[in-house]
Amino acid sequence: MTFTQSHLLGIEPLHPVEITALLDLAQDYAEAARAGRRRWDALSDMTQINMFFEASTRTQSSFELAGKRLGAEVMSMAMQSSSLKKGETLIDTALTLNAMRPDLLVVRHPNSGAVDLLAQKVTCAVLNAGDGRHEHPTQALLDALTIRRAKGRLHRLTVAICGDIAHSRVARSNILLLGKMENRVRLVGPPTLMPAGVSDFGVEVEDDMERGLKDADVVMMLRLQKERMDGGFIPSEREYFHRYGLDAAKLAHAKPDAIVMHPGPMNRGVEIDGTIADDINRSVIQEQVEMGVAVRMAAMDLLARNLRAARAPQGVMA
Amino acid sequence: MTFTQSHLLGIEPLHPVEITALLDLAQDYAEAARAGRRRWDALSDMTQINMFFEASTRTQSSFELAGKRLGAEVMSMAMQSSSLKKGETLIDTALTLNAMRPDLLVVRHPNSGAVDLLAQKVTCAVLNAGDGRHEHPTQALLDALTIRRAKGRLHRLTVAICGDIAHSRVARSNILLLGKMENRVRLVGPPTLMPAGVSDFGVEVEDDMERGLKDADVVMMLRLQKERMDGGFIPSEREYFHRYGLDAAKLAHAKPDAIVMHPGPMNRGVEIDGTIADDINRSVIQEQVEMGVAVRMAAMDLLARNLRAARAPQGVMA
Amino acid sequence: MTFTQSHLLGIEPLHPVEITALLDLAQDYAEAARAGRRRWDALSDMTQINMFFEASTRTQSSFELAGKRLGAEVMSMAMQSSSLKKGETLIDTALTLNAMRPDLLVVRHPNSGAVDLLAQKVTCAVLNAGDGRHEHPTQALLDALTIRRAKGRLHRLTVAICGDIAHSRVARSNILLLGKMENRVRLVGPPTLMPAGVSDFGVEVEDDMERGLKDADVVMMLRLQKERMDGGFIPSEREYFHRYGLDAAKLAHAKPDAIVMHPGPMNRGVEIDGTIADDINRSVIQEQVEMGVAVRMAAMDLLARNLRAARAPQGVMA
Repeated sequence: MTFTQSHLLGIEPLHPVEITALLDLAQDYAEAARAGRRRWDALSDMTQINMFFEASTRTQSSFELAGKRLGAEVMSMAMQSSSLKKGETLIDTALTLNAMRPDLLVVRHPNSGAVDLLAQKVTCAVLNAGDGRHEHPTQALLDALTIRRAKGRLHRLTVAICGDIAHSRVARSNILLLGKMENRVRLVGPPTLMPAGVSDFGVEVEDDMERGLKDADVVMMLRLQKERMDGGFIPSEREYFHRYGLDAAKLAHAKPDAIVMHPGPMNRGVEIDGTIADDINRSVIQEQVEMGVAVRMAAMDLLARNLRAARAPQGVMA
Repeated sequence: MTFTQSHLLGIEPLHPVEITALLDLAQDYAEAARAGRRRWDALSDMTQINMFFEASTRTQSSFELAGKRLGAEVMSMAMQSSSLKKGETLIDTALTLNAMRPDLLVVRHPNSGAVDLLAQKVTCAVLNAGDGRHEHPTQALLDALTIRRAKGRLHRLTVAICGDIAHSRVARSNILLLGKMENRVRLVGPPTLMPAGVSDFGVEVEDDMERGLKDADVVMMLRLQKERMDGGFIPSEREYFHRYGLDAAKLAHAKPDAIVMHPGPMNRGVEIDGTIADDINRSVIQEQVEMGVAVRMAAMDLLARNLRAARAPQGVMA
Repeated sequence: MTFTQSHLLGIEPLHPVEITALLDLAQDYAEAARAGRRRWDALSDMTQINMFFEASTRTQSSFELAGKRLGAEVMSMAMQSSSLKKGETLIDTALTLNAMRPDLLVVRHPNSGAVDLLAQKVTCAVLNAGDGRHEHPTQALLDALTIRRAKGRLHRLTVAICGDIAHSRVARSNILLLGKMENRVRLVGPPTLMPAGVSDFGVEVEDDMERGLKDADVVMMLRLQKERMDGGFIPSEREYFHRYGLDAAKLAHAKPDAIVMHPGPMNRGVEIDGTIADDINRSVIQEQVEMGVAVRMAAMDLLARNLRAARAPQGVMA
């Protein structure tokens, strides 16, 4: 078995061979779904619990659909209205759900590292659906699959990641994945929205969009996460769009066949011009969502296989 | 195939033959459910997503149960806590969900016309579960099935629709459906709760309950929708009940075998006397709810058949 | 058939033979789940609706998983955002859901007796998931199964129930069940948190933890339900822990092999010392949660069998 993980906590622990194996399987799921297939049996012996401590339309829906299509029984918890209000700790909540014998636990949490901590306490496979500013591995994987489908490869590409890098776990997971696959990553944005110590990431840094987008194969815009900006610099939307929003003039500096990406939800007219977002020749934003379901199906399928093997008597591999 | 629609956006586009076909199928589902059957395979190759931008216990539950009983995988979104809060537009939210490749999209939205707009943007079948003051087609269809079961026919009946007509998409869809099936419709209520241009609907209008209910076969009470009355006239509940609430004295003016309907949720003692609501010889209010599940099963089944046919290679009809 | 109930409204109406039959079936489900089984067909012809008028992570999840594992179609209603806000009564809401032809209705409600009232109005099997200060029968049954597994029997044990007895339906249902099975029950807590007329329950009462825990086989801690203390005495958490919180010193007075229980969610450092809660040699708190799913599967399975028999033509027993 190529994919040897027990959990999907981040991109960091993944070997490039594992990334490729996961993307290959996701590609198969995506093509079958396009052909109209909606049902598989891969998780028909599994219970999946979604614990979202931050609201999320697209990520939670995507995990929920992925599990249901694979035949899992899926339970989604609204953790805001949960026992945490009655004074229970995060770990107790997780142990309680773990005692109900789920097989897959999908967790989003506002604190970096919270999902890793949970994974140490439970007996099921844990998938990180975003933890603080740390990682959001399925987002980076779906971005990678979208790039690979559009560009025919996932190496030796120039990828410009633009905007609010500092608050973005999406950026962090993408930087890790694209680096492992030997791409050239350029971070573009105002210095105030760059994370501290960014030079350690092995990436180029630009604060000018024209220079940043020059000859890029992929232009990945990020959402301006005003809700995470506690005090400090908050740019005016108009000024931000003028300098860092993606419009036709700035995009002209990228390669002629460059693709445009955004993890959503988009602020049209802030990070990205609506016309660019809707241009089906450049924008792969809808395809990112579609690949999201396929990547989550592949991730859960692979983790379930490892879980079955680990549980089998005498450790016989399935 | 008699039913040729790709979406169910309202009663307006439906041909009487399509209405009859849908009610016939719903009748079959209703009888089978009464006999204890809970599972069908009609949607076992389908994903249904419910997007409710207004909260609704009964309509959302009814669509959810209908889809589950037909074997669909059903995902219900709480759109209040959705990406819309992060600045995303309605269309972007719909396109995002559409990219997850649902087959059926059930939408309730506070704005008239919002569901029609969505239907133009997505690649799946859309069902209108109520949009502003415009239409609520499945409610009119379930009312029609309930009437047909109680009266043995759905034509040449006198139907009095009473109360807050102005704010009611239920009334509007019912007026359209009952008119298409050649019934006599009388709107009864205070002039302040009549919509502008009501005379164009081909209906009679009365502001007095005694005259309005005279010789009616069906008395359909509406909920007083205080939450939709922005400024303007708000009647006192006591005065309203005195003049327009259904009690035994007013009901005596209808035909002796007239049935009493209410789309729910009821305000007992405001629009309707509790004794009348609970009178199993007159009230078909519970049966309306039961027929709601059956009508939604039929609507989704028919739309799914058309979707399969449209997707089939060479346009071969299933 | 040993288990003859149509509803599970409380422990009070159950015969000891019925309790034993339910626990035996639950034990089988628990062992199969431990061996990795997640799917059964016992409810594949059933619709289960969960109506929770009070939020609850663990109980609602447990019922939801139990139903899904048995093959039911499960619909969970967020009743806070329901039609009740539009002025509908509890009974009308229940009748509306009943008209959708569910087979099992799981109800939690803040008012004592509300679930019994509902059961009289509907045509399906009703399970009480907690009503006011009245009963919480599945909690008592899962506690009983946990005790029986740890102690090898469920009779002639000394069980100390400690803390906020007055506000606890868990305590009430446990007192009834443990009494029926001929155990010795001791209530331990401050007089202000004892219910009026406690002496009628056939239990011992202690206000001192040392005397209360003496020679106990089972120490069952309760959650301090501050949210239910309207006015009146509210102890400081620190003082409460000092006198009534379970720590090693107090636990030393119980039998050396005494087990520690808590229905959750726990307030660590208020009712119970975290070290005790996590001591896998003493604490069975996680196992309580696990048995919760098994007990709910057994309860719904038995009620479904009786429902099928009652519905069968000529009353033939299944």
